[in-house]
Amino acid sequence: MATISRLRSSDPDFDSQLQRLLHVDEEQDHEIDSAVASILRRIRTEGDQALLELTKRFDSVQASTVVELEIPRSEWESALESLPAAQRDALQSAARRVREYHERQKQSSWDYLEEDGTRLGQKITPLDRVGLYVPGGKAAYPSSVLMNAIPAKVAGVEEVIMVTPTPQGTRNPLVLAAAAISGIDRVFAIGGAQAVGALAYGTATIPAVDKIVGPGNAYVAAAKRRVFGKVGIDMIAGPSEILVICDGSTPADWIAMDLFSQAEHDELAQSILLCPDASYLDEVHAAIERLLPSMPRKDIISTSLSNRGALIEVRDLEQACEIANQIAPEHLEISTESPERWVDHIRHAGAIFLGRHTSESLGDYCAGPNHVLPTSGTARFSSPLGVYDFQKRSSIIHVSKAGAQKLGAIAQTLAMGEGLTAHAASAAYRNEPESGPAS
Amino acid sequence: MATISRLRSSDPDFDSQLQRLLHVDEEQDHEIDSAVASILRRIRTEGDQALLELTKRFDSVQASTVVELEIPRSEWESALESLPAAQRDALQSAARRVREYHERQKQSSWDYLEEDGTRLGQKITPLDRVGLYVPGGKAAYPSSVLMNAIPAKVAGVEEVIMVTPTPQGTRNPLVLAAAAISGIDRVFAIGGAQAVGALAYGTATIPAVDKIVGPGNAYVAAAKRRVFGKVGIDMIAGPSEILVICDGSTPADWIAMDLFSQAEHDELAQSILLCPDASYLDEVHAAIERLLPSMPRKDIISTSLSNRGALIEVRDLEQACEIANQIAPEHLEISTESPERWVDHIRHAGAIFLGRHTSESLGDYCAGPNHVLPTSGTARFSSPLGVYDFQKRSSIIHVSKAGAQKLGAIAQTLAMGEGLTAHAASAAYRNEPESGPAS
Repeated sequence: MATISRLRSSDPDFDSQLQRLLHVDEEQDHEIDSAVASILRRIRTEGDQALLELTKRFDSVQASTVVELEIPRSEWESALESLPAAQRDALQSAARRVREYHERQKQSSWDYLEEDGTRLGQKITPLDRVGLYVPGGKAAYPSSVLMNAIPAKVAGVEEVIMVTPTPQGTRNPLVLAAAAISGIDRVFAIGGAQAVGALAYGTATIPAVDKIVGPGNAYVAAAKRRVFGKVGIDMIAGPSEILVICDGSTPADWIAMDLFSQAEHDELAQSILLCPDASYLDEVHAAIERLLPSMPRKDIISTSLSNRGALIEVRDLEQACEIANQIAPEHLEISTESPERWVDHIRHAGAIFLGRHTSESLGDYCAGPNHVLPTSGTARFSSPLGVYDFQKRSSIIHVSKAGAQKLGAIAQTLAMGEGLTAHAASAAYRNEPESGPAS
Repeated sequence: MATISRLRSSDPDFDSQLQRLLHVDEEQDHEIDSAVASILRRIRTEGDQALLELTKRFDSVQASTVVELEIPRSEWESALESLPAAQRDALQSAARRVREYHERQKQSSWDYLEEDGTRLGQKITPLDRVGLYVPGGKAAYPSSVLMNAIPAKVAGVEEVIMVTPTPQGTRNPLVLAAAAISGIDRVFAIGGAQAVGALAYGTATIPAVDKIVGPGNAYVAAAKRRVFGKVGIDMIAGPSEILVICDGSTPADWIAMDLFSQAEHDELAQSILLCPDASYLDEVHAAIERLLPSMPRKDIISTSLSNRGALIEVRDLEQACEIANQIAPEHLEISTESPERWVDHIRHAGAIFLGRHTSESLGDYCAGPNHVLPTSGTARFSSPLGVYDFQKRSSIIHVSKAGAQKLGAIAQTLAMGEGLTAHAASAAYRNEPESGPAS
C-alpha cells in the first residue's frame, strides 16, 4: 500500500537519484509576491486603518480600532489556568527545559588591554523589540511559541510582541497559554502579510520591532523576505526533513514511526533512512505498511513518503555519514550502537539525535534545544535559532595616546595605498605626540 | 564654500528633519535585477562556457578556458615581495592585529550531562568553503581582503576562494599581496554577477561555496540577494556612515577630518556630528571650509557633506547618546572626556571608537576589530562581520533510557495537543522501560 523509494548507494547513478530526491522547487510565486507588496505598501502608508480593513477581509474579524485587536494578558492567563493539568504541566516542563538549555547560549561582552593601554573588545546587547509570528487555525503550535519566545527573553529582549491571526475570531487557547508561559509581552490578533508589515514599519497602535521570527504560510514568508533589511528576520523555512542513520538493530517499528513523525507534517516533508543492512530495510518497509493504516494523518504520510521518502542501502556507516554531510539535514538521527563514535564524522546537520532512545519528537517539544532548524541543506552555513539570534555585537576600540602612534603609522601607509587621503590625515593628527589633549 | 546642514535638537520639527537626513532610497533597480537574473541562469545552465563569454564581454579578458583565469599563488607571492617594505610591513602588522582580535571570537562546542544521563549540547563547526568577492578597478581595497578572509580562516574554513574582476586584464598587486597574507586558498580573475553565480552554483572549474562575502557594486549586490538561500551571504552594505559625539574639547581640525574620512568614500556616505556646544560647531564648520580645498577627493567630500552631512547642536551628551541609539550608526566616535562613561548609554552601533585618539580610520585598517559593519540602522539587529559568521552550530541531543521516560511523557502530551499522533507514538515507543535495547 505505502510506496517509498528504495535506493542503493552502489548504483552507478546513485548521485543523480539522490539529487532528484532532494530537489525542492524554490521558485517564488510572483502572484503571491505582488499581492504581498501591495499589502505592505498599504500598511506602510495607511497604518492602522489598512490593518483593520485587511484583518476584516482575510480573517473576517471586525474591529473599529486596532486597540480592540490586542488580546489582554488576563485572557492568556485564563487560557493557561483552564488547561487540563497534564497539558499545563507538560508545557511548563518543556518551557523550563528550553530555558535551561538556552541560558547556556547567552554571550557576554569581553575586552582586553594591550601593553600600550589600548583597549579592544566587543559589547553584546539584546535587541530592543522582537515580533513573533504564530500561525492561526489548524497549524497552531504552542511549542513554536516556546521555541521562538524563550531564546529572545533569555537574550534580554525587553519586549516580545506576538501576532497571530484569529480567523472568524477563533482564538487558540493552547497558543495563548504558551504565550503566558514564555514571557511574551503583548499579543495582537492579526496575521498574514499585514501583520508582518505592521511589525516592520509600526503603526499608530502596533510598535515597530527590530526583528521578526516565526513560521508562516507563503504570504508570511514573502512578506518577511520583503521587509528584510528594514528589520532582521529568521530563516525562511523549507519543508521539514529527517535523515535516520541506523545500524539495523533498533526495532523497525521505532524507525518507521520516526519517519512518519516527519512525514505527517505535510506532503512535502522528507523522511530518509540510511542503513547498510538490506534485510533491515525490508523490515522497516514492512513496518511502514503495517503501521500506516492506523495513523490519523495516513494520507499526508503516504503522499510524503511516496513522493519524497527513501530507504537507502549504504555500504557502511561511514558512507552513511558522508551522505548525511552531503544532505546537511535539518534533523539527523544516529540510531546505532555507540552513536558518539559517528558524531565526529558529521559536519553539517541542524540537530543530531543520538542513540536509540532519542526520537526526534523529543527534540521537537522538550529536550531543550531549539526546534527551529535550518532546512533544505542550509545547515551547511546556518544554525538552529538561538539566543545569539537575539543578541548583537558592537566593536569597542579605545586607542591610547601611545597606541595612536603605532597604529597611526600603519593606517597612514595603508590609507595612502588605497588613495584615501582623509583617512590618512585623520590618523596622522593622532600621531603627533605633542599636538593633542591627553584623554 | 562647503555647505553642511546645521540642526538643533530643540527645533520643534527636529525628529522629521533627522528622518529626512537619514533616509536612504533602498528601492532595487529592476533593470539591474533582471539582467542579473539572466546572467545567473546562464551560469547555472552553461557553467564555464557562460563564465568565459561574460568575462570577455564585461572585463575584456579573453581566455579559452576558466583554468587560465585562475591566478596562481606564485603571482600573489611575487606581488607581496615586490611591495615597498613599508607597505608590506603595514599589511602584515594589520593582518596580525586583525587575527589576534578575531581569535577571541572563536566559539567552541559545549555540552552538559543531566542527572539521568541525558546529554545536551551544541557542536560548532566551520563552513567547508567560502567565496570572497573583491571589487576590481579603482575601488580595490586590500584592507577588505584582510577583513573578510582572516575571520574565515580563524574559524577554520578549509578553503577560501577569492574572485576579483581584472578589467582589461589589469591585476591589482596590493589586492594580490593581501590575498597572500590573509591565507586565501585560490584566486580567480572573474567578477560581477557571473562570479557570484559561479561561486553559488559551481562550474566545472569553479568549486561551489557555502557562503559568499565581500563588497561589490549593484550587480554584485543583486546577485548575492538572488543566490541567498542556496548559499549564505553577508549583509548587503548601504552607504558608509559616521556619527561623532564630541564634548567640544577635541581639536576641531581632528573632528573635521574624521567627518571627511567618511565623506571621501562616496557621495552617499554620511557624516554627522553631535555636540552640545554651538560655538564648537562653528569651529568645526570653519575647519571644514579651511581644510577641504587641500583634499584630493574634495568634490566627493563636498557633495557628501552637503547632501547627507550635518552638524547637530544637542542639549547635552545624554541626549547625544539617545540620538545615537535612534540612528544606530555604523561607526560611532565618542570624542569626549572619560568616554567609557557614555558607552553604557549606547545600545546600537556597529563599532564604537572611544576617546580623542581613536580616529575611525584606525579601525578601518589595523586596530583589530572588523571594518565590515552593519549600515543604515541595521546595527539595531546585526553585528560586525566576525568568526561567528563562518562557524555554524548543530544541536546535540542524546537522551538516556531514563530520560526517555520523563521526556516521552511530556512530548506525548504536547504532540497530542497539536494533533501530531506519529510524534506522540514515536516518543511512546521509547517510553516503555522494558521494550527496547539498552543503548
